[in-house]
Amino acid sequence: MCQLLGMNCNTPTDIVFSFTGFANRGGLTDHHSDGWGIAFFEGSGVRHFVDYQSAITSPVAELIKSCPIKSQHVIAHIRKATQGRVSLANCHPFVRELWGRYWVFAHNGDLKNFTPTLNGPYRPVGTTDSELAFCYLLQQLRNRFGENLPPLADLTQELRELTHYIAGHGPFNMLLSDGSALFSHCSTNLYYIIRQHPFASAHLSDQDISVDFSEVTTSKDRVAVIVTQPLTTNETWTQFQQGELKVFVDGAVVE
Amino acid sequence: MCQLLGMNCNTPTDIVFSFTGFANRGGLTDHHSDGWGIAFFEGSGVRHFVDYQSAITSPVAELIKSCPIKSQHVIAHIRKATQGRVSLANCHPFVRELWGRYWVFAHNGDLKNFTPTLNGPYRPVGTTDSELAFCYLLQQLRNRFGENLPPLADLTQELRELTHYIAGHGPFNMLLSDGSALFSHCSTNLYYIIRQHPFASAHLSDQDISVDFSEVTTSKDRVAVIVTQPLTTNETWTQFQQGELKVFVDGAVVE
Repeated sequence: MCQLLGMNCNTPTDIVFSFTGFANRGGLTDHHSDGWGIAFFEGSGVRHFVDYQSAITSPVAELIKSCPIKSQHVIAHIRKATQGRVSLANCHPFVRELWGRYWVFAHNGDLKNFTPTLNGPYRPVGTTDSELAFCYLLQQLRNRFGENLPPLADLTQELRELTHYIAGHGPFNMLLSDGSALFSHCSTNLYYIIRQHPFASAHLSDQDISVDFSEVTTSKDRVAVIVTQPLTTNETWTQFQQGELKVFVDGAVVE
Repeated sequence: MCQLLGMNCNTPTDIVFSFTGFANRGGLTDHHSDGWGIAFFEGSGVRHFVDYQSAITSPVAELIKSCPIKSQHVIAHIRKATQGRVSLANCHPFVRELWGRYWVFAHNGDLKNFTPTLNGPYRPVGTTDSELAFCYLLQQLRNRFGENLPPLADLTQELRELTHYIAGHGPFNMLLSDGSALFSHCSTNLYYIIRQHPFASAHLSDQDISVDFSEVTTSKDRVAVIVTQPLTTNETWTQFQQGELKVFVDGAVVE
């Protein structure tokens, strides 16, 4: 299985603290060393980094830790291959375009006997069950809503049905964003925390590093972090219910 | 206008030498400082880096110069904005998926009164004439050939007709690759060189750097470099004819 990290904020924020702990799971504090990736929305554009090296040895991961990129929507993934060989094409997150927006997707889990009919424009490039599920999701959204982005409530309802269906084939913890909202579905393991005023100090569980968020934020900032296993030791993370889909906008749960 | 750089090889090769000279045009030896980008195929996967900082100040460009990435198909672009503001979504190259392959596209030129009907699955995310032309190209390829990649000769013939049509709206120098071939169309300025055994030394025109390719190659290597203006001072570059589309595979012109 793999590890997921998502961030959704009301103001562009860097993910260096969380990513530093998370990246250690790519070969140091955990054994997810079959590649990694991260995508940052900046406006409607996306910076997308993938690597089949482990996150602790990748020079690109080092760049991300040393050059803070500020974003309102971030999705990161560390891979432990279950289906599909170790290759760049199989690294999450995946990016496709729908309705003139980029969509970014990453998955933790293992789908069995999942062979949906793909008769739309989205085809997997790699060989993972995850990219197949992403192509299916986008195809079904396009079939359901046609040529235009629907209201968030309608989109959420459709995604609840689609993720419920896919999760019938195996664990389907996933993060999905179109640069306006971050959708999170939990089959087995997903936690979140919302950091807001008054900010406090946090200490990583994967490395002996603390940060006092009150020193690097304003009182209006709000940041949601979503992850397969809590990243800090001294904060209270909320566990998702199994089968739950939550939608984050501006650092808050809205659906 | 902008600058383009492409590389197509019969064995994975790093582009550090050419990119070093090219990147200097992003604000140092030329005034193309409205962003830049580069995409590398590795197998069917793509590493895609874009930045709206100039190529000479971007830490990501520094990473690419210091950490050689080997690839058989590379497309790079330095932007001087003509249409569309300076933003990440407007940085070339653009990436989309068609027929289960990633397609990478970059454009130099300025299209006027180009308003094709987009009724397929591809929509621009940004506001450039270039991304619009890319979406139109992919839509028309999908309309023409359906669900499967056609033979290269048929694909080339269709691209000749499509690029000819688009170039009727203004300069359309472009590079396009699906990870198996590199398609290059010249409206105004495009040059190429094929480096092969016996390899010689080359000296950059944008920086006082030379490399002796015989020291870093084998006798079987073959590398085509395509660029809007020649990168070296002591080699003979071949200028494309206006309106010409050339196809490179394994470092050779095949169509």
